[in-house]
Amino acid sequence: MILSIRNQFVPILIALCLLTSQVTFDFAPVSAEEAARTPVKVLVAYHSQSGNTERMAEAVVEGANSLPDTTVVLKRVGQVTADDLFSSDAIVVGSPVYWSNMSGEVKTFFDNWQFKFGVFPEFKMKNKVGAAFATGGQISSGKEVTMLTILAAMLGNQMIVVSAGGAFGASATTEGESPGIDKKELADARSLGRRVAEVAAWMKPLLSK
Amino acid sequence: MILSIRNQFVPILIALCLLTSQVTFDFAPVSAEEAARTPVKVLVAYHSQSGNTERMAEAVVEGANSLPDTTVVLKRVGQVTADDLFSSDAIVVGSPVYWSNMSGEVKTFFDNWQFKFGVFPEFKMKNKVGAAFATGGQISSGKEVTMLTILAAMLGNQMIVVSAGGAFGASATTEGESPGIDKKELADARSLGRRVAEVAAWMKPLLSK
Amino acid sequence: MILSIRNQFVPILIALCLLTSQVTFDFAPVSAEEAARTPVKVLVAYHSQSGNTERMAEAVVEGANSLPDTTVVLKRVGQVTADDLFSSDAIVVGSPVYWSNMSGEVKTFFDNWQFKFGVFPEFKMKNKVGAAFATGGQISSGKEVTMLTILAAMLGNQMIVVSAGGAFGASATTEGESPGIDKKELADARSLGRRVAEVAAWMKPLLSK
Amino acid sequence: MILSIRNQFVPILIALCLLTSQVTFDFAPVSAEEAARTPVKVLVAYHSQSGNTERMAEAVVEGANSLPDTTVVLKRVGQVTADDLFSSDAIVVGSPVYWSNMSGEVKTFFDNWQFKFGVFPEFKMKNKVGAAFATGGQISSGKEVTMLTILAAMLGNQMIVVSAGGAFGASATTEGESPGIDKKELADARSLGRRVAEVAAWMKPLLSK
Repeated sequence: MILSIRNQFVPILIALCLLTSQVTFDFAPVSAEEAARTPVKVLVAYHSQSGNTERMAEAVVEGANSLPDTTVVLKRVGQVTADDLFSSDAIVVGSPVYWSNMSGEVKTFFDNWQFKFGVFPEFKMKNKVGAAFATGGQISSGKEVTMLTILAAMLGNQMIVVSAGGAFGASATTEGESPGIDKKELADARSLGRRVAEVAAWMKPLLSK
Repeated sequence: MILSIRNQFVPILIALCLLTSQVTFDFAPVSAEEAARTPVKVLVAYHSQSGNTERMAEAVVEGANSLPDTTVVLKRVGQVTADDLFSSDAIVVGSPVYWSNMSGEVKTFFDNWQFKFGVFPEFKMKNKVGAAFATGGQISSGKEVTMLTILAAMLGNQMIVVSAGGAFGASATTEGESPGIDKKELADARSLGRRVAEVAAWMKPLLSK
Repeated sequence: MILSIRNQFVPILIALCLLTSQVTFDFAPVSAEEAARTPVKVLVAYHSQSGNTERMAEAVVEGANSLPDTTVVLKRVGQVTADDLFSSDAIVVGSPVYWSNMSGEVKTFFDNWQFKFGVFPEFKMKNKVGAAFATGGQISSGKEVTMLTILAAMLGNQMIVVSAGGAFGASATTEGESPGIDKKELADARSLGRRVAEVAAWMKPLLSK
Repeated sequence: MILSIRNQFVPILIALCLLTSQVTFDFAPVSAEEAARTPVKVLVAYHSQSGNTERMAEAVVEGANSLPDTTVVLKRVGQVTADDLFSSDAIVVGSPVYWSNMSGEVKTFFDNWQFKFGVFPEFKMKNKVGAAFATGGQISSGKEVTMLTILAAMLGNQMIVVSAGGAFGASATTEGESPGIDKKELADARSLGRRVAEVAAWMKPLLSK
């Protein structure tokens, strides 16, 4: 017998049933709160030369870890294994902007989803949650394109795409008035990590049958 | 014995428990199949002059309706009300390509999310499922841009974005060798409608508390 | 003997001819400097509610005017006439970011290139120089998309597209640490205006036969 | 003796000079036709695994060669040298679509513009003409994104961007009803090559001082 019951009635129900029976309860994730406690695995994959994107990646990890029962794997794109990819419920990919776009390393990582990991034609990444972050020297010179095209690669894999910390994900402007990564940018990256873990936790009980 | 329980059934359930006293509870919104039975409301909003985008919109509606317990509202973008928007669990927006982009009517519809419906700063559309479809005369002359920028507007609203029927959504090429909307294109539109309803149904029990 | 001739030198030249009577002329639109003196007309069309995009538009005008023999027309998108459009050698379009994209007013302006001005199927805008600018409240939340999709509309018209002041054009972030339009952003807008006038002047002698 | 003289003064000048001398006139490239005879060098750089993008590249070459005095260099992206890059007046870059975007090889090629060839901070590619082409299995699944992001990389380099054969460049759909590259797609690629050579020829006399 499988039931989906609203929280507020559960105590009454339990009390009533306990009075009369020998019930075994297996409460499954019903509320977002509870759902957030569903163990999920988040992969944060990034490329970084200067260390800026790495700092953002670490903040994404912190954000994801701020949710209970979240396992986070932080790896450079070149180090990601098939198991990292397929065992994750969510993937967050970060790149520096090189000539208005994600770096060649990050693009090659996506290409390897097929060439090394064979995600297609089964769409093995389908229904995993995806998100993006980016760093770039200047404002309006490629961070949006970088994030949107990372999301475009994920949508092509039939992933479920979310953003936080900015319209398309978290980003940092690393030159100009505020060089490197500042507090607001790290906070945005943490928001993104938390958001991704949260949505993955919501979806996991339903998707991981 | 599988039950989906709502408030009004709790007293009955309690009565049942009392009567039988040997119930095993396995509380879980368990399978995607079942989740797909969660009642959801999908809004399909479109602009169409020639009727091509309207035909695609109708196929999106069919796809969404192919899932049990899905209510679908089909409206031209100019007819959408605040209630249509806020009562929906998922929004699918379709546009013809005008000069490489969504039409002015569809863009104005998104602008009205704020100017008429005041979605910001509360992010009232947050966590609703979003998707896009497009029609255009030529191949590679704006359908991708139209779909991706519709998704970009949705991501800016913190919606959860999905695709089906194509990397970024369903689309149709309306001139050239196969004028109008052909069978494959309609099938893609149906896939998109079904996908959106499915993901919305997965998320609804968790999001609509 | 190489001469670069301006209006004021023509009488001297004539005198020279008269004196020497054995001159060989090799008429050529020789240097970029000189080309920049070809009279060109630049249309700057924008939408603005708060006045931010208008300030950027005015700076684009200043930049274009900094080149000799440049006529600049500054108009809100809704005020642009067929003659404004067709008599211009270059068009610079500016928009605020509304939901990650250009505003509905600006999109409708592009749609009217066809619906009101009938640019297609003759591609009447072909070979005009095009560029974009944008303002938006947040960093990385639509200014790139707004500029790139303006350029995409122009490319669809077979225009020749340039940028300056940023990878995709000039932009300003109007909220946060530096509210409104700051000096650097105005300088970027001026660079864009100058760049557009310069390229249009280079191309005009060749294109305007 | 090389002169650049405003149209309106030419008749007066001619009259005056003719009265007194034995002038030989050599009117330099004023018309597009003539401009097209200015010798230009076009680099066509591509990545191809299946051979589809290579076939398109060859058609781009044909199109460029259809203009007199055009030298075309066709190379895989990995084979391009600094001299190829800097001695060219125009660059056309082609890529297959891998996961909604240009391939990692092509992105790495752009990254190498800086890492190997050091184009920045002098913007050594400034004012070269740029264009893009793409091939992909499905309609609306990344060819537009691939072309637009190639153009975005070029705009970041302050190149002058054009299209032909489609709104954003030439493209081919290599699976489905018309597998491989068909005649219309090859014609589009030739249009693109010709367009690029033409615009480069127009600009060269002005830019190459």
